[in-house]
Order: sequence, then C-alpha cells, then structure tokens
Amino acid sequence: MKNIKAYAAQDAHSPLAPFTIDRRDPRADDVEISITHCGVCHSDVHQARNEWGGSVFPIVPGHEIVGVVTKVGSSVKKFKVGDRVGVGCLVDSCQHCQSCKEGLEQYCDNSVGTYNAVEKDGSRTYGGYSTAVVVKESFVLKIPDNLSMDGVAPLLCAGITTYSPLRHWKAGPGKKVAVIGLGGLGHMAVKLAHAMGAEVTILSQSLKKEADGKRLGASAFYATSNPDTFTKLQSTFDLIINTVSVELDWNLYLNLLKRDGSMVLLGIPNTAPAVQAPALIFGRRSLAGSLIGGIQETQEMLDFCGKHGITSDIELINMNQINEAYERMLKGDVRYRFVIDMESLKKA
Amino acid sequence: MKNIKAYAAQDAHSPLAPFTIDRRDPRADDVEISITHCGVCHSDVHQARNEWGGSVFPIVPGHEIVGVVTKVGSSVKKFKVGDRVGVGCLVDSCQHCQSCKEGLEQYCDNSVGTYNAVEKDGSRTYGGYSTAVVVKESFVLKIPDNLSMDGVAPLLCAGITTYSPLRHWKAGPGKKVAVIGLGGLGHMAVKLAHAMGAEVTILSQSLKKEADGKRLGASAFYATSNPDTFTKLQSTFDLIINTVSVELDWNLYLNLLKRDGSMVLLGIPNTAPAVQAPALIFGRRSLAGSLIGGIQETQEMLDFCGKHGITSDIELINMNQINEAYERMLKGDVRYRFVIDMESLKKA
Repeated sequence: MKNIKAYAAQDAHSPLAPFTIDRRDPRADDVEISITHCGVCHSDVHQARNEWGGSVFPIVPGHEIVGVVTKVGSSVKKFKVGDRVGVGCLVDSCQHCQSCKEGLEQYCDNSVGTYNAVEKDGSRTYGGYSTAVVVKESFVLKIPDNLSMDGVAPLLCAGITTYSPLRHWKAGPGKKVAVIGLGGLGHMAVKLAHAMGAEVTILSQSLKKEADGKRLGASAFYATSNPDTFTKLQSTFDLIINTVSVELDWNLYLNLLKRDGSMVLLGIPNTAPAVQAPALIFGRRSLAGSLIGGIQETQEMLDFCGKHGITSDIELINMNQINEAYERMLKGDVRYRFVIDMESLKKA
Repeated sequence: MKNIKAYAAQDAHSPLAPFTIDRRDPRADDVEISITHCGVCHSDVHQARNEWGGSVFPIVPGHEIVGVVTKVGSSVKKFKVGDRVGVGCLVDSCQHCQSCKEGLEQYCDNSVGTYNAVEKDGSRTYGGYSTAVVVKESFVLKIPDNLSMDGVAPLLCAGITTYSPLRHWKAGPGKKVAVIGLGGLGHMAVKLAHAMGAEVTILSQSLKKEADGKRLGASAFYATSNPDTFTKLQSTFDLIINTVSVELDWNLYLNLLKRDGSMVLLGIPNTAPAVQAPALIFGRRSLAGSLIGGIQETQEMLDFCGKHGITSDIELINMNQINEAYERMLKGDVRYRFVIDMESLKKA
C-alpha cells in the first residue's frame, strides 16, 4: 500500500501535519485495516514532542485504532473482510519469552510498539493517525457488535491500561477502589471498576467533575486539594489506581490504603517521588505499577465492555484539529478522550 | 512482683544502667516468666536513644524474650510452670478489629508493644532487659524442645520479621529470593528462605561475609559496591527482602526483580528514598513493606524452626556489656545477634 494519508510530527517542535506513508502488502498472517477512528492518548503528545527521549522522526502517532478489515493474508483464520477490528499499543512481540507465553506481551523485552518502534524486519512502525494499517493477525482484536466504533477506540489503550490492573489486583464486589484523576484513563477506570462490582471513589483535584464522576459509576468523590480528604479516608481502600502522571505526594495516598492494599501507578511523572517506608510497612501495603495489558486480556476487556455496554466518553474531532486537541488535552479540557474521525482524513 | 532487676535508659543520651521495676501479679489469664535470655534488636537502640521520637523514659528495652514459666493465672490453659516460652514485640492488642480477627495483631491500631508502650490499664510496659516479665497468655509462645534458648531469643523479632514476608510473598521451591544485608534480620532471612526451599542470593555491601552467607544457606553472594552486580542480576528475583535501614537507591534493586516480583522493606531509613515509576510499571513490580508477624504466625515460625533445627547465630553477652554491644551492633560488628544471658543480671 503506497501513499497512505497520515498525520506526522516531523520533529519535536513542529505541529502535526499531513504526511504520506507506505504500508506493507499483507503477508500470509496479516490483516489490512481501513481505519475509521483513532483515539488520542497522552503518550502521543509525549512521543511527538520527544518528552520521554528516544523518539525517531517523522512520527505518526496513534495506538487506539479501530477500523474495518479490507484484506486478509492467506493463513488468516480469525478475521474476514468487513470485520470490525481494533489495534492497541502493540503490533508484535518475540512470542517465545515467558511473558509472551503467559499472554503478557506488554512485558516482552522485544515487543513492537504500534508507532515510534521498529518491526522485526527493520521497518519503522507508524500509528493510527492514518487511513489504513497492516497488522499481524495475532495482534488484531475483535470489536463487539453492540459497541460504537468511535467510543471503542480509546478502549485499546485507556481501557486496557485500567482494566488490566483492576483484574490483576482483583477489583470486584466487596472491594473499595479509588481512582486518582478523572481524565482519559481515570474515567475508564471508574466505569470498569464499577462494572466489575467494586465500590468506586474518585480522588480529583477539585469537585468540578463530581456530578460527572457519579454518572460514570463512582459512589463517592473527594477533592484532593482539601487536606481533610486525607484524614477522612485513612485506611479505606483495597486498591488505588493512580492514573495521573503529575507528581503527587504518594505517601498521602498510600495511607488511604487498608492493610494489604495496593496503589498501582499507570502514569510516569517527570520526577521520582519520595516514598516513606512506614507508609508501606505499617499496613503491609504495596506501591506497584502496571503497563497496558496483554492481547488476550485486551480481547477479554473488549468482550467485557460489550457485555456491559461500556465505551469511552469521547469528543469526536477531525484530523486537522489534532494540534488544538493536544493543547486542550494538556489542560485537561476534554471529556474524556479525543477520537479522530478518520473519514475527515480520507476526504481531505 | 516488686523490685525486679532491669537495665534502663533514663534519657536519650545516657548509657543503659541498672534499674528496678515492678511487674503486676499474674491475673487470671497471665503467665509469669523468669527470663533466661533476651536478644538485642536494632530497634532497642533506636528507642533507647529516641531516634524515632516518642520514647518515654525510663525505657527498659528488649522484645526478644525467652524464659521459663514460674506462675500461671487461674484461667491459663496453654502453659504450666516450667514450660519454656517466648515473648516477642507485642504483649496485647484490641482483640476485636479485623487485623486481630485475622491473627495479624501487629497491624492492630491498638496493639501494645512489649516496651515503651502503655497497657490497657494505663501502666507502662517494660521489656526483656530484666529478670522476669508477666504477659497475657495469648501473647506467649511455646518454644520447641529441641532448640537452645539463647539461639531462640532472636527468633521472636528477627525471626518472625523475616518469616512473615517470606511466607506472605510465597518463598519456596522454584522461587528466587534475594536478601539485602547480612545482619541480624538478614541472616535469619537467609536461613528461613533456604529452609522453605527457595534459592537464596545475598546482596551485601562487600564480599567480606561470603563464606558465612553460603554456610547459612545462600547459593550466591554479590557485592552491591560493585556496579556490575546490578547489570548482571537484572530481572532475576521473585522476591527481595530488604533488611537494611540505611538509605539505598531502591530503583537499582527494583530492577533486579522479575515481572510481578516484590521488594519488601523491613527497615525504616531516616529519609524517604526516591522511587522511579518506570522501575515498577515496566514489570508490574511492587515495593511493599512488612511489620513483624502475628502471634499465631510467630508460633508457626517457632515450630518451623524446631522442625528444621533453626536458631539464630548469636554472641552471648552479660547484661553489663549492653552499651558496648550497642556500639558494636551499630558498626555491624556482630555475627549475627547479641543475646543477653539474664543469669548475669540475676547474679549481679
């Protein structure tokens, strides 16, 4: 596939702009997808602006991809032309390490990111800010029939990134779960934890989004700008999902965990926060981290969302609004995920 | 019991010196114990010198107590005069909170420390640097017949403090466990993890104690002063037991954990070390803490030690050598625990 329309950052300081890329013709185990929508993730900005270092330009971001199958390779069994499918943060992995064997490809040392990465054949990967993509069958997900494509797109990153730790740390009936931050990840964490049967509390900077948070499934909402919050909620939660990447005083939050509770970090602050050992020792608490989710688990998450009618709350934008969307996202001005309508690029 | 001989610190700056205390006469559920030995724990120094704050003087330290029953209250069922018994860090707790119900009295908000604490009746607790103690039956432990009293004493704190996290985080066959620091706690962690069937590696500042470490049960020994250690052992361990309370760069050690591994802190540094989120996120690792162990678990640990013939490696001292012992302990100059022979105080 030659001259596929895309949007790329040419360097760390330029806005995203139209660009054309080539995609490989489908191999025997490949699926060719016409992209209908792509979610906009915070990490798209980090990488487009080289804030984590290591970005190789030009970059075509986007790893919350949904679309329709347009062609399949000769050995593809799971998909046929016309199927609604998704692609998340990964398009390949080594397939033989312990993590891959356990279906935890996200922890494979040789996993291949959907963009800003290098395939096994040496070619660079370009993401979902484009009209089509070709992906190995085993990294393509099925989308439940009852869910809208635009609302599903963010499930491929924000959805699985929150679903995986909620499952791993056993959110469910009888468990009290707190979610720090009500953004793209946070609002998915609330919906998913609620659907799993947990009692959900949102810890947000202010009470501005309280009504919204309760609509999403939270039974309680506290402002972290109010110091009373940290007194009142001492030793309350089994699990805290920290979705924010700004630096917080983690010790304050660790003290909100019950004995044997865990706080799980999903975002990476620019600094390394100080951790007081007593906050962990006097309650056998854990501070942990979690990265996206495996492919099998991503399918499980999509099926769970289908069963519970869960999609992301989104603001649909055209491809040429992406730079404005980045600025608004950085200000937290989105409820709760921007999704690009790829028709806008196809027609451009 | 009036005028019991003891050793006390009168303030944070004085050496320990002879002192007399009273103990209550045994109540219906009490056991009166003639102390034969008491281990010397690092936290004795911290509290005698008020390094954690909150010390109330005079303090009689000591929470690694072993001795022989000399009297029992009318309702005592588990013990009789002449029994060999032990008392650890706790002499009471609320008995009705969730932690108490689960046999995790160490996490009870109203647990009563063996010294430097206040009993429910308002009296102060004095520890094991004395010739006798009176303790509620339910906080007294049985000592297996085959173990020497002096070597058992440190099991009541150093033993259970390492046994509990090893059990909780499932050390055993097929698991790789690293122990940071080969001191009082560390040497017990090595013996216990080895007896549980885990493969044990010691991470010590230098290779000075290598032969000793291998004799104790470690199959590998690395110097943390050598940066190669942190390259070579990347992603190696299921569990790291951190027994040291000096500040370390925890991130270096977190990177030695396999996916889903945990590093458990047992000591409290004077500072709050910085934690890099990626060390946790890119491996779903946990940084956790653990505090002593519950009473039932302490009995389980003593029985385990009886079965495996495990005691602490000790240096027996007289009561009047305690101040010198503190100085030597602070320099790490003890293999591996000082134990006071309480005959020396009885005769003094």
